[in-house]
Amino acid sequence: MQKQIKLVKRPVGTPVEEDFEFSQVPIGEPAEGEVLVRTNYISVDPYLRGRMNDVKSYVPPFELNSVISSGVVAQVVESKSPHFKENDIVTGMLGWQEYSVAKESVIRKIDTTLAPASAYLSVLGMTGLTAYFGLLDIGQPKDGETVVVSGAAGAVGSTVGQIAKIKGAHVVGIAGSDEKINYLIDELGFDAAINYKTEDVKTALYKACPNGIDVYYENVGGPIGDAVLPLLNKFARIPVCGAISAYNNEKADIGRRVQGYLIKTSALMKGFTVGDYAPRFKEGTEALAGWVQEGKLQYEETITDGFDHTIDAFLDLFKGANLGKAIVKVSEID
Amino acid sequence: MQKQIKLVKRPVGTPVEEDFEFSQVPIGEPAEGEVLVRTNYISVDPYLRGRMNDVKSYVPPFELNSVISSGVVAQVVESKSPHFKENDIVTGMLGWQEYSVAKESVIRKIDTTLAPASAYLSVLGMTGLTAYFGLLDIGQPKDGETVVVSGAAGAVGSTVGQIAKIKGAHVVGIAGSDEKINYLIDELGFDAAINYKTEDVKTALYKACPNGIDVYYENVGGPIGDAVLPLLNKFARIPVCGAISAYNNEKADIGRRVQGYLIKTSALMKGFTVGDYAPRFKEGTEALAGWVQEGKLQYEETITDGFDHTIDAFLDLFKGANLGKAIVKVSEID
Repeated sequence: MQKQIKLVKRPVGTPVEEDFEFSQVPIGEPAEGEVLVRTNYISVDPYLRGRMNDVKSYVPPFELNSVISSGVVAQVVESKSPHFKENDIVTGMLGWQEYSVAKESVIRKIDTTLAPASAYLSVLGMTGLTAYFGLLDIGQPKDGETVVVSGAAGAVGSTVGQIAKIKGAHVVGIAGSDEKINYLIDELGFDAAINYKTEDVKTALYKACPNGIDVYYENVGGPIGDAVLPLLNKFARIPVCGAISAYNNEKADIGRRVQGYLIKTSALMKGFTVGDYAPRFKEGTEALAGWVQEGKLQYEETITDGFDHTIDAFLDLFKGANLGKAIVKVSEID
Repeated sequence: MQKQIKLVKRPVGTPVEEDFEFSQVPIGEPAEGEVLVRTNYISVDPYLRGRMNDVKSYVPPFELNSVISSGVVAQVVESKSPHFKENDIVTGMLGWQEYSVAKESVIRKIDTTLAPASAYLSVLGMTGLTAYFGLLDIGQPKDGETVVVSGAAGAVGSTVGQIAKIKGAHVVGIAGSDEKINYLIDELGFDAAINYKTEDVKTALYKACPNGIDVYYENVGGPIGDAVLPLLNKFARIPVCGAISAYNNEKADIGRRVQGYLIKTSALMKGFTVGDYAPRFKEGTEALAGWVQEGKLQYEETITDGFDHTIDAFLDLFKGANLGKAIVKVSEID
């Protein structure tokens, strides 16, 4: 038997412990073309909140009383696939449970000589790729332009800012504590950073962006997204990656309408999810791994130890407390 | 001497007659490289309201106590340019006055054998080109997709809908009277049309767009723009051309934040002004003229007779009364 986490209630507003339930279920047996894997690391992500609602979105909602799934790194225990052998380390979208039976088509091997296994859930995984494609494909920062990123100390935001620096931009981060602000400037080399909890964001942006804003990488939505609008330059680009400030809203998300600002500046705003770029993941992973190895791209992980703390790690995301990518360590890699 | 219209007060909310003043000024003399023209037609447009505010926008604000300018068709009276001769018919951004002295670089000759001169202020002018580039460059409708256009009976909107039909789309218009609705369906071949004054727009859109919305050509903003958001399909495109509902707002324009909708659908929203496409105007004018001559593209003009009624014609734009492009006829072409 093994432990598994199910969604048992659809959260109303911010998720709470009672929305989830641990249960004991049998460890499955792989059929032909399948492998049995032991979970090493689980990725906990803000976007999972959206899948807990019963509404159409870019990924289908989680079913009630079923196991939750997200990005996972796991090690092959038993393989009935010619593509995998025992002890291979793989990643894929798998369940929040200690063991999974996975079809060979939904997992891929990772190279832990390039980076530690957990990095495939952070800087070389979905969050790194989300930063890479949103910034470079939609944002397209040019040398000397100003790039503003919200949620800047988070896993996606910190990678966005560093890639923007690599591309020669003036980079301004928005985050929620002085500790994070200092981290962005002192450790990651951001040109400026704004603490939205203690500063007036609009005033601080005017000061930090004397040449206006060419790219705003949107991670949070809400009043911070509103504050950026009057500073947009002609032909500004806004990759819209997240709106965490609204994920737990029970009411409609109301704020400044963007139309007038977009017309004045001929600006572009585009939503995306990393899955839109699936055919280019190899390109992205290689570029990111190269920058990591050159020492140009740092990343932080907040690793919570033990499967029993998976729900806590997820709930912590909505308290704005974590620095870098939130990951749960479930077992050692052999 | 000649008559001229100046802006004497910056309008607060909806413009009123007292914001403008007629005055008598001398008819100028052309210098080398200039021509003297007699105004035949003046274009009155909603976007001019924006230029009456003292704020940075895509075009500079009008100066107080100076002549207002917009698109004009005029005939050359005296030429000191080798590129123009007496009686040539030209178009350009010129003043609201009976005669103008224009530099040769700011006007271009038009071919009145392709279409009547006034058409160069409507379907072959800025409004036609605004429809053409916004729809085809940003909206990119594909055969069988659903295109929704607001302000659908206006000069831009009616052209957008017809081009979308030419491209094989299912076309739904939103307008403000049953007369306009009937015109869109019976005369222009729209597949459906919604009267936002008598119908619940959201409910009507659900009915008119059974396959969701792939392209929303935004002319009005406000609650109509909000109502479209929940119906967007994956990879939807929103060319943002106008937000007339907000032009006269004295307060911030508040409504549904778009971020969450854009993320769910990977949708794109892009503001633009026709000037962004200046290098491609020849392509656009030729395509539009071709469709007009093939009978595939109809256009309406509301022509107000007499320079003295120019202000009335402008103020009427904000009453939603006009059908098609609003133009003032100032003098006959010889």
